[in-house]
Amino acid sequence: MVVTNTITETRYIVGVNRKTGKRIGLVPTMGYLHRGHCSLIRRARKENDFVVVSIFVNPTQFGLNEDFSAYPRDFERDKNLCFEAGTDLIFYPSINEIYPKELSTYVYSEKLTNTMCGAFRPGHFRGVATVVCKLFNIVQPDSAYFGEKDVQQLTVINRMTEDLNFPIKIVSVSTVREKDGLAMSSRNSYLSDNERKSAVVLIKSLMAAKDLIKKGERNAAVICKVMNELIAKETLAGLEYIAIVDKKELQPLQLLTGDVLIALAVKIGKTRLIDNMSFKIEKSKRKFIHEAINVSGKNTSSYCDRC
Amino acid sequence: MVVTNTITETRYIVGVNRKTGKRIGLVPTMGYLHRGHCSLIRRARKENDFVVVSIFVNPTQFGLNEDFSAYPRDFERDKNLCFEAGTDLIFYPSINEIYPKELSTYVYSEKLTNTMCGAFRPGHFRGVATVVCKLFNIVQPDSAYFGEKDVQQLTVINRMTEDLNFPIKIVSVSTVREKDGLAMSSRNSYLSDNERKSAVVLIKSLMAAKDLIKKGERNAAVICKVMNELIAKETLAGLEYIAIVDKKELQPLQLLTGDVLIALAVKIGKTRLIDNMSFKIEKSKRKFIHEAINVSGKNTSSYCDRC
Repeated sequence: MVVTNTITETRYIVGVNRKTGKRIGLVPTMGYLHRGHCSLIRRARKENDFVVVSIFVNPTQFGLNEDFSAYPRDFERDKNLCFEAGTDLIFYPSINEIYPKELSTYVYSEKLTNTMCGAFRPGHFRGVATVVCKLFNIVQPDSAYFGEKDVQQLTVINRMTEDLNFPIKIVSVSTVREKDGLAMSSRNSYLSDNERKSAVVLIKSLMAAKDLIKKGERNAAVICKVMNELIAKETLAGLEYIAIVDKKELQPLQLLTGDVLIALAVKIGKTRLIDNMSFKIEKSKRKFIHEAINVSGKNTSSYCDRC
Repeated sequence: MVVTNTITETRYIVGVNRKTGKRIGLVPTMGYLHRGHCSLIRRARKENDFVVVSIFVNPTQFGLNEDFSAYPRDFERDKNLCFEAGTDLIFYPSINEIYPKELSTYVYSEKLTNTMCGAFRPGHFRGVATVVCKLFNIVQPDSAYFGEKDVQQLTVINRMTEDLNFPIKIVSVSTVREKDGLAMSSRNSYLSDNERKSAVVLIKSLMAAKDLIKKGERNAAVICKVMNELIAKETLAGLEYIAIVDKKELQPLQLLTGDVLIALAVKIGKTRLIDNMSFKIEKSKRKFIHEAINVSGKNTSSYCDRC
């Protein structure tokens, strides 16, 4: 395994491998790797001849009051995990290497970012799309691997790749969870013991939604209300949003049908966590249209568009 | 020479040539080729082993009231010109091939497009940057060729290539002119005989600016006034803008120094023409700061920021 810090070096080494006909896989990360990242790397290892992991805490996708400076970093630990998972090259650039001067050009997704995290983190997905576009052009992989936990990011990147004709296959990999169901996230390291216990409310509320859907519930407002009530019971939890949307365009649904995504963002103490679950809902002959029910969020004025 | 209409076919043929180590040159055009385009193709021919010319009248770079439908098209003529200039492959896609569904992702330049044509054609350079990004990803050339007549486009694409780390060399090629100095443009075909005679006012006013600069004039307002007066004398000509800007950032200059660009857009009858000239101005010990002089445009309320 080799570690590179510059674009030139990275291009050279990847280029040499590409020329010998090797398939290149890229796993873009912000480091502080967990088992979720390792699952991406192992998948890339399985499907490619040369695996590149980029580790770059990208400043342009953090808002002014977000946790860019505090974001956990541990390169030595990451290096070991990368090695164990089968990485060939770690691209570990400085901010100056990626942004040698103020950017003038940006990539953005117009329609997929007005809901969910995009509505709460203005500029976030522009930062993500732009840096991923840069990484795609630096590494020029055959395939790139992204986790399903960051489902809006995955959707934006999938669409970017398609819209801008990148000759790259985007591979989505299932969320890896702790034993109690909490989705793996570098930000879980911020949680105190009590917060860690509370954090399970995200998957709990998604499981409650799943149960309702299994029982035939199709009204988004009803599902949202139940999820919201579960979160409201957790004293350390503050809901940011619950979104019940069509999976492709990420636009709100009133009635669940087709490919449905339920996603949420919750602050546990000061730590913002996200999670989601997808459902394929066949058109039923029975209709489950209920009256919209008004509920209000806790510690937040705006969350699910449906409630 | 081969003509392709699909992305798949184009990628396949270019890919085969790339694999044998051939250097790929791309000349993106909107067709209705003239000697300017041919000069780009010949330059690409000289510097590459395999030359791709794309011919695509890109709808997303035209405003609602612009000439997308009227834009001249003559594929048979273009094909001959491409062949004569040394093209290996013409990529001639349909609109549906390039935009199979509504785009969600765009590339745009934030800072370079608030002046000059960008100020008068909102969305134009977003359309240009996005389609060029798509063509770059479809053809993956080593070099791409653009004319200096469309200087703001050239600047936007240069910066896009740099900002997004496209591994592509952008080659700019000098404007080719008619004998009387009129810059070659597909839109010159719109001109009546009288309009054609009037159209020479663009280069005339640039030459006047050049003379003034040679004589030591460094005040943008003074140069702008002289250019404006020349255009005002042409009854068929209506000034859109005169811009005296620094060549790199395209931001207005009051005092000419360093790399300076003088660009203008003029309507000759209904036909909008553009032209420009660059100057390298050494810092002089003598200062040429004049009072700003107020003049007003003809047939337009807004033109040079300096006047």
